[in-house]
Amino acid sequence: MKKALLKKDILLVSTSTTHGTGYLEHCRNEIKELLGDRKHILFIPYARPGGISHTEYTAKAQEGFTPLGVQVQGIHEAENPVEAVRQAEAVFIGGGNTFLLLRQLYANKLIEPLQQRVQQGMPYIGTSAGTNVAGKTIGTTNDMPIVFPKSFDALQLVPFNINPHYLDPLPDSTHMGETRETRIAEFHVHNRQPVVGLREGSMLRINGEKISLLGPLPARIFLQGQKPMEFKPEDDINFLLEAY
Amino acid sequence: MKKALLKKDILLVSTSTTHGTGYLEHCRNEIKELLGDRKHILFIPYARPGGISHTEYTAKAQEGFTPLGVQVQGIHEAENPVEAVRQAEAVFIGGGNTFLLLRQLYANKLIEPLQQRVQQGMPYIGTSAGTNVAGKTIGTTNDMPIVFPKSFDALQLVPFNINPHYLDPLPDSTHMGETRETRIAEFHVHNRQPVVGLREGSMLRINGEKISLLGPLPARIFLQGQKPMEFKPEDDINFLLEAY
Repeated sequence: MKKALLKKDILLVSTSTTHGTGYLEHCRNEIKELLGDRKHILFIPYARPGGISHTEYTAKAQEGFTPLGVQVQGIHEAENPVEAVRQAEAVFIGGGNTFLLLRQLYANKLIEPLQQRVQQGMPYIGTSAGTNVAGKTIGTTNDMPIVFPKSFDALQLVPFNINPHYLDPLPDSTHMGETRETRIAEFHVHNRQPVVGLREGSMLRINGEKISLLGPLPARIFLQGQKPMEFKPEDDINFLLEAY
Repeated sequence: MKKALLKKDILLVSTSTTHGTGYLEHCRNEIKELLGDRKHILFIPYARPGGISHTEYTAKAQEGFTPLGVQVQGIHEAENPVEAVRQAEAVFIGGGNTFLLLRQLYANKLIEPLQQRVQQGMPYIGTSAGTNVAGKTIGTTNDMPIVFPKSFDALQLVPFNINPHYLDPLPDSTHMGETRETRIAEFHVHNRQPVVGLREGSMLRINGEKISLLGPLPARIFLQGQKPMEFKPEDDINFLLEAY
């Protein structure tokens, strides 16, 4: 596993927008650091939040990158999406519905091309659903299964699962639906990979063989058969890259 | 459609347990009315809430039926699950994880036998995940996709989808994850069937060609391309049975 990770350059963001800040504003510095001198990014709008069109969503993504002087191209504008990935300087996959996103990635045969480019060191940015699909499977998404993808296996850019928008149980809630923590415990009855509960405002940065938690908050990490653990941004979480 | 519905005798409950009441307590009278003189019910524990065993879950179900003098048999104890359904006086499917439940219904080849028995007039009770799978698809479940079912198509005992544990948007929330209403709107970008948002404490009762909302609260009904609508228990919601 370790050798394969050498060149990876990935930023996985819990949510594109935190309360009271603009689109991609809270992670702008981290995106800037990741992109370096690159001035073009390929945007994959397949998750279509709220059902908006690919064109509308790409315009929104451009808003987030304009302050960095970066030009956004929507992959739906490309004649050949696979070729667009092969030639991309960097890729950004935005949030919305994870099932729809993954189905479209399969339908357009983009899984392997994305894996190859990330392996070669192309920067990858995901927010929300785009962070979910970077994991081993989409088995810990919060989204509704509004369409049927051919598999829950995801891009597997990292060897664990992510739960974006991680929410702590509300102590005074009278709602009887399962808490996020209960759902992840149920996931671990049937799956072995670690799950990172990534709170809003948090990010994971993978740079070669190193992974770090960024943002102001701790992350809640769930290992099969263990009690959930809290890790702060300064803690060593490199064990996550050793998961299999 | 109408003819096929003639004999159906179904109770779909949003949640097994409302805040401050015991297991199945809030819907005990409705279950009693549905079961009439029947003293045995077949329980399908596949959804395994919190990962508990089929045996543990069946013991819990028995607790809910003991006050009614009804004996619960777990389908996992049956040598032949299909035969158990064919001979059941009534069936109860409890909550837990909807993906796991549906996968196990397919794995044990129970979809058609359950459809046939319900068509013949056998009473069906569902709570939460057991209510979800009674709908057209599981595309409006709140659960995590912890296992991969071969299809999202469900038992289709009714021609619409259900969202159990329906939650209204919290006006003061700072959380940026999608509201339930946004998720259902996204569902309707890709699917045409109505969705009934069934609040905790609410039930749907299907009796032949008639459907009623039971419990103290209104239900929120979502039709493709329409604004969400509120229906009170005394309102006529029979249009739901005409959906296709």
